[in-house]
Amino acid sequence: MQALLLIAHGSRRAESNDEVRTLTEDLKTRAGASYSIVRCAFLELAEPSIPDGIELCVKDGATEVVVLPYFLSAGRHVVTDIPNEVRGKQEEYPQVNIRIASYLGANAGIPDLLLASASVPA
Amino acid sequence: MQALLLIAHGSRRAESNDEVRTLTEDLKTRAGASYSIVRCAFLELAEPSIPDGIELCVKDGATEVVVLPYFLSAGRHVVTDIPNEVRGKQEEYPQVNIRIASYLGANAGIPDLLLASASVPA
Repeated sequence: MQALLLIAHGSRRAESNDEVRTLTEDLKTRAGASYSIVRCAFLELAEPSIPDGIELCVKDGATEVVVLPYFLSAGRHVVTDIPNEVRGKQEEYPQVNIRIASYLGANAGIPDLLLASASVPA
Repeated sequence: MQALLLIAHGSRRAESNDEVRTLTEDLKTRAGASYSIVRCAFLELAEPSIPDGIELCVKDGATEVVVLPYFLSAGRHVVTDIPNEVRGKQEEYPQVNIRIASYLGANAGIPDLLLASASVPA
């Protein structure tokens, strides 16, 4: 059973965290049969943490967890912090295949999405 | 003459800022006839600043500047800081139409892009 765990930075603004939770619900709807479990977790400032998010996926029955960084650049959070948070849980659950996916900003579709956003008023 | 000004947060990591500059070059290629001028600017930690970025567009001959926030959530930076940075330049150049576009995270294409990224290993 495959789980998708969307990782956001987390914000002091509750609305920003709720925006991530709403997006996660949307992902769940679109994921169809690809991911039986779709959850989100936060690097800091909001709950659940990344280890807690992985734990919830495992408790849901996940045998594979795809950790998906909702980040635009390959900064310290993507390169170091997220892998560090994942490592402990991988050691705790060696039978679960935890894989970190490419961060959103690396997606080749970003430029076209930006050009589309440019036509939409704030 | 219409300019597109991509606004990123800015990072202490030079590579992250360079990632934004590379993206801007890509946008320039894809923008075709829609935007004669495509530039980037940073809210903090990198150059040019937002006012300097607008200034550069105006010096290039822009009569319209679309300010495009490369941000994932409608946090303080999107809601308050970017509009504040833009305001002074709009007052300085009343003949230039400066318009703030919707931030990237609000784009309805984000969920599908995330599902595509989930299949790509980090």
